[in-house]
Amino acid sequence: MAVFRWPDNPIIKPQSVNPTRKDFEVIGVFNAGVTRFDGDVLLLLRVAERPVSKHPDMELTAVYDSAKQQILIKEFSKNDPEIDFSDPRMTITPWGKFLTSLSHLRIARSKDGVNFKIDDSPALFPANEYESFGLEDPRITLIDGTYYVNYVAISPLGVTTYLASTKDFETFERHGVIACPDNKDVILFPEKIGGKYYSLQRPVTALFEKYEIWIAESPDLKYWGNHRYVMGSVPHAWDNSRVGGSAVPFRIDAGWLEVYHGVDEDNRYCLGAVLLDVEKPWKILARTGEPILEPKTDYEIEGFFGNVVFTCGLLYEEDKLKVYYGVADTSIAYAEIPLEDVLKKLKPTAAVEGN
Amino acid sequence: MAVFRWPDNPIIKPQSVNPTRKDFEVIGVFNAGVTRFDGDVLLLLRVAERPVSKHPDMELTAVYDSAKQQILIKEFSKNDPEIDFSDPRMTITPWGKFLTSLSHLRIARSKDGVNFKIDDSPALFPANEYESFGLEDPRITLIDGTYYVNYVAISPLGVTTYLASTKDFETFERHGVIACPDNKDVILFPEKIGGKYYSLQRPVTALFEKYEIWIAESPDLKYWGNHRYVMGSVPHAWDNSRVGGSAVPFRIDAGWLEVYHGVDEDNRYCLGAVLLDVEKPWKILARTGEPILEPKTDYEIEGFFGNVVFTCGLLYEEDKLKVYYGVADTSIAYAEIPLEDVLKKLKPTAAVEGN
Repeated sequence: MAVFRWPDNPIIKPQSVNPTRKDFEVIGVFNAGVTRFDGDVLLLLRVAERPVSKHPDMELTAVYDSAKQQILIKEFSKNDPEIDFSDPRMTITPWGKFLTSLSHLRIARSKDGVNFKIDDSPALFPANEYESFGLEDPRITLIDGTYYVNYVAISPLGVTTYLASTKDFETFERHGVIACPDNKDVILFPEKIGGKYYSLQRPVTALFEKYEIWIAESPDLKYWGNHRYVMGSVPHAWDNSRVGGSAVPFRIDAGWLEVYHGVDEDNRYCLGAVLLDVEKPWKILARTGEPILEPKTDYEIEGFFGNVVFTCGLLYEEDKLKVYYGVADTSIAYAEIPLEDVLKKLKPTAAVEGN
Repeated sequence: MAVFRWPDNPIIKPQSVNPTRKDFEVIGVFNAGVTRFDGDVLLLLRVAERPVSKHPDMELTAVYDSAKQQILIKEFSKNDPEIDFSDPRMTITPWGKFLTSLSHLRIARSKDGVNFKIDDSPALFPANEYESFGLEDPRITLIDGTYYVNYVAISPLGVTTYLASTKDFETFERHGVIACPDNKDVILFPEKIGGKYYSLQRPVTALFEKYEIWIAESPDLKYWGNHRYVMGSVPHAWDNSRVGGSAVPFRIDAGWLEVYHGVDEDNRYCLGAVLLDVEKPWKILARTGEPILEPKTDYEIEGFFGNVVFTCGLLYEEDKLKVYYGVADTSIAYAEIPLEDVLKKLKPTAAVEGN
């Protein structure tokens, strides 16, 4: 696989981004939505920040209080034996789970695709009870002249998917929760297929403990139904623990190409690809039996949450996949993968699942 | 609370129902959808059956194989130390979880509301990959002359909600999965409110481990969106562990009255009631601080899964709630509760949650 990683990776780091307040620090900028706008490459960054702690024994996190419409600071003593700090992403207390950072979405623009100018203030910031723990992992899909932005809205109520839209990336309209908890990695297809809109979804079955890819259809992008199962993890493979859609799918001659993410039992995140039928996108035509991108470099292996490559979007241009991807839940990197190399890795599903 | 339990309860028992095959036995008939049809009381029974085991050390269960379109028998040795048989509802093996019975839906009719004639064959039987572990807990909602039946479709893919409809209770049309996993206790409102259909839903947030009541809206009953949180468990109360919608809501002067179920940390299931705003059914006006029906009699306390009263439907007639309810996941009982007594138990939400 001829993956070309940009030599100056990561292209965007936490220190490139201003926090929203002087008493906050940005600890991660990763998992960005991607599109072209006015000729520029436009990224919608997930920016994770937290209050700066002045006491090494005290962990602070910020949450949005929708009733009071303000940010509250939560304090946790690292010496409290009842609190579990083992997962860097989450603080588990007897009175509930809290995230260790609060994410919002921020715009960055680039002429050349690798040098970005980052906005000083958020494009979308927590604003309602579904977003009190933040906005994460946005996807941008251009449909009929409107840019639809869907993102994970997370709160103690659950992990939901929220829909917003914009025509200019200056004002955004929110359209409510389109997928109830827990459901993330929702990916809108860029056009109607057979008269319906489609989205990949990643609901969770708590009873059977599976994190797999489903598809839903919609007349209008706001209301979704006819949910169907698409694909799951492959035992003993690189994606044996969880799978979810990642980038917005794009059309090639053979079908819809979807770059998805797979996770193994050690929480190692890689990217793979799946080819879906042009007219029946719930049907898998082929799937890569191995990753098309996996954590290999220092910046992919080490960081806030290491061994992670994760994308929310790519540009398919010049017969290449131009992949913007989060690394180690810390920074954003850029890589190019020739389409031809992805196609070579695609195998019939039966061959992959029979591995 | 003047609950009148029918003296000859339970009114329908497993031995009242023929299995679908001579080598099967019915182990439960419970959680029935309820409506009036042609003047009769019509119940859509959940009938749980399993293959009769000829060996005391061998447990058998049936699953529907959608690829082969036939029932398969699974065998588990009770002497296998790797298999967990502790939950009577589920067999947990290293290669996955299986239900101990396969449920289908069966029609029963009555002139007097307590003596029922039960069909010999199923109305709805597993027929696709989402139903391979059975059809459970149907609700019937009459909307504009059509009876909509939604039920839990369960399979290794997850716990989903499927929609079907009928005009005559002879032929049913299936409309696909309307709520992806895990989401059950979906309850359709019987009319449009402000131009939209509404349904209560009970999604699961795996991350925060909550089982709470949400509401969604729809233009057409098939596609659902604008998901909103409605209500959760109350700490230290009878419903402190899980809550979910139960009966189809009905209009009273003050709003929509919804009989819901609550579960405590000992898996004791009771029924409560919540009053929702007439025009904004996502708003709670009042809620019962204590159950309106709780397991008290022998047949409610003892059975396949004891200490359970659970309803999928009731008739609101003669100023009474005529409640058909599953008892101990075994049989169906009947009780009447005067509306007046339910109304007396309703309190402002703040008073309930401050208990």
